[in-house]
Amino acid sequence: MGRTPPHPEVSQFDLQQVLEALVDPVRRSVVMQLDAAGEDFACGTFDLPVSKSTATHHFKVLREAGLIRQYYVGTSRMNALRRAEMDEAFPGLLDALAARRAKGG
Amino acid sequence: MGRTPPHPEVSQFDLQQVLEALVDPVRRSVVMQLDAAGEDFACGTFDLPVSKSTATHHFKVLREAGLIRQYYVGTSRMNALRRAEMDEAFPGLLDALAARRAKGG
Repeated sequence: MGRTPPHPEVSQFDLQQVLEALVDPVRRSVVMQLDAAGEDFACGTFDLPVSKSTATHHFKVLREAGLIRQYYVGTSRMNALRRAEMDEAFPGLLDALAARRAKGG
Repeated sequence: MGRTPPHPEVSQFDLQQVLEALVDPVRRSVVMQLDAAGEDFACGTFDLPVSKSTATHHFKVLREAGLIRQYYVGTSRMNALRRAEMDEAFPGLLDALAARRAKGG
């Protein structure tokens, strides 16, 4: 369990930090892929147009903002969307982005 | 009327551009001040911690993203929040930010 990286509590979520995470199209794509799937994904299984090291950076930014929770299963680093906690902190924000996705935007 | 700057139509609103406009705290403050007041303000009447020229840049970014409509009354450049049009393009987005403001975030 020592490999589990630190995660903020809901009370520590910061709107500025969350918006800075979501303004990046690649990071927003990670969030929307997790939201659409409704299940957790390993880092390597996302469809992202960036290098592995860049993707790792994006996952870190998302984790530090509270948008995703990362944990290990064997050697795979898994990513879970913290949807309920985000909805608690910023009601409607992810819904608004997901609605846009549904429209193709 | 030749002084009225160009504004995008709702069909041209772009989520990436809107998020890039809203991620800046000063620009988000302009949007939230307009939303809270429910009336239009001249550029010089906002409470902003930046120089006049920087504020002018921020208003331009907001206008080009479709968040505000600018028009002249005499020599005053007025700013109106395009709330209904934003809600049409991105339902719930400004509500989510306004809800956060109401909580003091």
